Amino acid sequence: MIINRKKYPILHFARSVKKLKLLPIEKLPQLCYELRQYLIDIVSKSGGHLSSSLGVIEITVALHYVFDTPFDNLIWDVGHQTYPHKILTGRSDIQDINKKSKLHPFPYRKESKYDAFGGGHAATSISAGVGMAIASNKENKNRRTVCVIGDGAITSGMAFEAMNHAGHHNIHLLIILNHNSMSISKNVGALNLCFSKISIDHNLIKKYKERKNFCIKSDFLNKDVVYQKEYLRDMKFYNTFFNDFGFQYFGPLDGHDIFLLIDFISRLSSQKYTSVLHIITKKGKGYFPAELNPTEWHSVPKFDINTGKICSTRKDILTYSEVFGNWLCTIAKKDKKLIGITPAMTEGSGMVNFSKFFPEQYFDVAIAEQHAVTFSAGLAISGYKPVLAIYSTFLQRAYDQVIHDIALQKLPVLFAIDRGGIVGQDGETHQGVFDLTYLRCIPNIVIMTPSDENECFQMLYTGYCYRNGPSVVRYPRGMGIGTSLKSMNIIPIGKGIIKRFGKKIAILNFGPLCIFAEKVAKKLDFTLVDMRFVKPLDINLILCLTKNHHFFVTLEEGMVSGGAGSSVNEFFMKNKITIPILNIGIPDIFVPHGDQSEIRRKYELDSDGILKKILSWLNK
Amino acid sequence: MIINRKKYPILHFARSVKKLKLLPIEKLPQLCYELRQYLIDIVSKSGGHLSSSLGVIEITVALHYVFDTPFDNLIWDVGHQTYPHKILTGRSDIQDINKKSKLHPFPYRKESKYDAFGGGHAATSISAGVGMAIASNKENKNRRTVCVIGDGAITSGMAFEAMNHAGHHNIHLLIILNHNSMSISKNVGALNLCFSKISIDHNLIKKYKERKNFCIKSDFLNKDVVYQKEYLRDMKFYNTFFNDFGFQYFGPLDGHDIFLLIDFISRLSSQKYTSVLHIITKKGKGYFPAELNPTEWHSVPKFDINTGKICSTRKDILTYSEVFGNWLCTIAKKDKKLIGITPAMTEGSGMVNFSKFFPEQYFDVAIAEQHAVTFSAGLAISGYKPVLAIYSTFLQRAYDQVIHDIALQKLPVLFAIDRGGIVGQDGETHQGVFDLTYLRCIPNIVIMTPSDENECFQMLYTGYCYRNGPSVVRYPRGMGIGTSLKSMNIIPIGKGIIKRFGKKIAILNFGPLCIFAEKVAKKLDFTLVDMRFVKPLDINLILCLTKNHHFFVTLEEGMVSGGAGSSVNEFFMKNKITIPILNIGIPDIFVPHGDQSEIRRKYELDSDGILKKILSWLNK
Repeated sequence: MIINRKKYPILHFARSVKKLKLLPIEKLPQLCYELRQYLIDIVSKSGGHLSSSLGVIEITVALHYVFDTPFDNLIWDVGHQTYPHKILTGRSDIQDINKKSKLHPFPYRKESKYDAFGGGHAATSISAGVGMAIASNKENKNRRTVCVIGDGAITSGMAFEAMNHAGHHNIHLLIILNHNSMSISKNVGALNLCFSKISIDHNLIKKYKERKNFCIKSDFLNKDVVYQKEYLRDMKFYNTFFNDFGFQYFGPLDGHDIFLLIDFISRLSSQKYTSVLHIITKKGKGYFPAELNPTEWHSVPKFDINTGKICSTRKDILTYSEVFGNWLCTIAKKDKKLIGITPAMTEGSGMVNFSKFFPEQYFDVAIAEQHAVTFSAGLAISGYKPVLAIYSTFLQRAYDQVIHDIALQKLPVLFAIDRGGIVGQDGETHQGVFDLTYLRCIPNIVIMTPSDENECFQMLYTGYCYRNGPSVVRYPRGMGIGTSLKSMNIIPIGKGIIKRFGKKIAILNFGPLCIFAEKVAKKLDFTLVDMRFVKPLDINLILCLTKNHHFFVTLEEGMVSGGAGSSVNEFFMKNKITIPILNIGIPDIFVPHGDQSEIRRKYELDSDGILKKILSWLNK
Repeated sequence: MIINRKKYPILHFARSVKKLKLLPIEKLPQLCYELRQYLIDIVSKSGGHLSSSLGVIEITVALHYVFDTPFDNLIWDVGHQTYPHKILTGRSDIQDINKKSKLHPFPYRKESKYDAFGGGHAATSISAGVGMAIASNKENKNRRTVCVIGDGAITSGMAFEAMNHAGHHNIHLLIILNHNSMSISKNVGALNLCFSKISIDHNLIKKYKERKNFCIKSDFLNKDVVYQKEYLRDMKFYNTFFNDFGFQYFGPLDGHDIFLLIDFISRLSSQKYTSVLHIITKKGKGYFPAELNPTEWHSVPKFDINTGKICSTRKDILTYSEVFGNWLCTIAKKDKKLIGITPAMTEGSGMVNFSKFFPEQYFDVAIAEQHAVTFSAGLAISGYKPVLAIYSTFLQRAYDQVIHDIALQKLPVLFAIDRGGIVGQDGETHQGVFDLTYLRCIPNIVIMTPSDENECFQMLYTGYCYRNGPSVVRYPRGMGIGTSLKSMNIIPIGKGIIKRFGKKIAILNFGPLCIFAEKVAKKLDFTLVDMRFVKPLDINLILCLTKNHHFFVTLEEGMVSGGAGSSVNEFFMKNKITIPILNIGIPDIFVPHGDQSEIRRKYELDSDGILKKILSWLNK
């Protein structure tokens, strides 16, 4: 969508950073207003991440106004909040963001020189920023580095590691702490309490507000204005968490006061040390329904601007996350030893009801995947039954802990791995395609991949009942195929099931592509097996099939390299079975964003694609 | 070694925790003295981790004296320091610890009920402790949980995540901060400065010392003694980093004053909230050479107690770490853009000379693997040439960052992965056997595995010159085979070399087992190829070999599951090449501790083993 000049005159003028800088400071509130309206307008038409972007309108304008981007490095943590940044840096067409071939959902280096660092996962900004700031120090061109990180993301250990390092060096780094008390859901953790305490205790915002009129009337950026000196002094000596790292702390400021932001950022932009500017913002700011419920409005489909009514995408079919949530509640009712854990993904993981009805058994540990895993280990040792709900892509953050603290000690922790496979619109950074490879090489672990909702339900129960070590149920994003949930039974560990007897070719399915494989198998009269277990592999079943099949096909929504299919190869090789296997899965690339179905088509993982792949391989 | 009753009478009496508790408090200094002497004596005879164990003699005695272990949970972070704990819990025979079938090098649950949680990697203790403490709260049996963590380990982000979570709950957890200003080498980072500042500023130790004589003479544990109240008050209101998490902070105390420790731990043991006791200890305490150089004495071979002379295990052959260190210095001389990074492993990674001669290009980021990787990303974006030296097992801590921040953005970072393969005495927790699997599924990455020192040298240079994305050189622990380093040349990416032409069977080698394969190939007239690159695979070379070989063998010191050999399987399957491949590598188990050569023998990875495996597979 092109910016309408009449409707958004200032934004139209300032649609590039160079032009933005030409605006007199007095025009900036109007720019912020228009930017906010434009954002609401465009997201209402195509859906997208709304509430975090609405919260950073002023800081985005202020940073581009003061800093010399892209010469100066501006790093956004995670990046859900970068729609205003994209709009101001020549990417106003955020309509259909996330869709195939459209703008990337997060900052992306190849998309714009203004995206200093790619985003997606939490708490990477300060680490990258420290690297850039140290490089800038060496380069000596007065290149400045700013990281914008939320009070949610900063709970991730990586941010702490980066701050510990930053504080050891004398570097020119500005950290903007965007404090809105939210991750995707309400933020938790001791630090959250600590920051909130500062905001409430500290009277600087109030103090400023009282004198605000005066200052706007006088020369705003005059450094000698008495009140400003006072603020600076007050803030500087207000001892905080950040001072322990050797940083200069300033704040908290009203993050929606563009003049105040510009004043402070201007001062801090020339500091030669690491400073933290703590700003208080409201997620969803300026659009009442989003302010009221920022979690629901974190990522929204199309909606009616006037009524705030979200266009329902609701279907009757359960999502896998909901299946998990239902299962969790069902067990929690009977077993007080069951503990459900999430690293700040209560909504996404389908745990809202569980958190409401079983608060004593529910733990949101903040964005802290490493801790989530080893915390589960502690619970398991103490006789509790931890179930860790985690997205596949985020489990990468806790790989060592799965190996070292869980599998090595054979602790009965159930991992409910959501978003396994192609995740669709979140794109490259969030694909859950590495998990089968990185998990299957770990000893002592059981890995299950359901092909439908009921299988998922049964597998969760199986994993929960399995006490001989860790187990994994890895299921995809989004809806199932509409199977109803049956009563719970333990699936025999390592046993696949033959879905269909056919000829010549046996398809071994691992996970939700089974529904596509069924069509193919039926059409060409192939055998189809739902292997269900990536580990242990049902070698007896496979051995049986080798007797009357000439070719095998393995099918999974994950990397071919080292994946489930690869384990079948290994088994054949070990036993000198010389039947060729076609391994279907994700090739050696980072899978881009786009609807799940589009991406499956692109990589030939739907019925047509699978059929095409098999035929072309056979004819090779 | 059995504890000699005459030489160590008190220790002999207190060699179980139950007996220890029977000792009158006045005997504890003598117990500490004897324990220290016994430790020095035994390590002098067999080698082991000395200096960290010497630093925690008093706190170990105090914790077992006050707490009701093993009912109460005592968790040691990392675990290098647990020799005294092992001795006091019925495992006095720490001679030959780390050796095959002897005691485990770290706390190990299956070894003793006193080992509440397995150790090895840093900063896991608080996470596990929070899990146990929350379980204890629910259980309501007044079971207490103590974590002992060093000021080195606490710099790891995981500890921060755990503290953030702990502070959110009202749990009974005691964190002992063992402050000795050391990781394995000198500790770095802002937090280190912050803790040190507290120790220096704060006069509690001095204050206590002045009144000590008085207190020992009077009733030591009388809670009403005025001075104690004063201390408690002073400590409680001394605002620290830990208070921001909502913890009660006490300290710093002299960590070698057994009476003081017992007094404070007794008080804190019954607190119903999370508290931090900050103790100052000296790594190597009580053995002068170790006090003088705790890093050198962190892990030592046999030594002469009287002279402090360490029995040299030095040979003329360079270790791979030394090869890396030499290479780093060679390049650093010419290229100021080269930056060498270590997460607190300067010595282990062979970077001592580099750190001395090129301090401007050297960064120790503390025990912070996640940050180390993304910090490198920031440097690479800014035009610098980061080389991250990291142990294979610790790179597991930064898996997500390699995928998300490096490979996805195709940043030219060179990973010098040390301790790839079997690590020997450190055992299960430290094996570098998963890396080829978890790395090879990542797109955009080049993975090299040298078969000797010169190959390693050339590959490091090749990786450094490769600017099209990240590259990995993965080399083993310990010495090479004695090849001399030649002048540096770029190896063509993805090209293997035929080491020997033979018949029927082609061995494809990935890494340092090549020397064993050579013998086998020669003996049976097989072809031997040093593949050198796990990724990209030299498929042209392999295709060539398929024409005149009936069998293939792949060889690597890593998991068979998804490893380098698996990529050859995948290639064959994709191309319907029906030649059987024997994948030799690590089976699906956690590899235990023991000398590298013993372990290689056990898993048939030396010449005899490889030969045996091949013949038995052929005859299958």
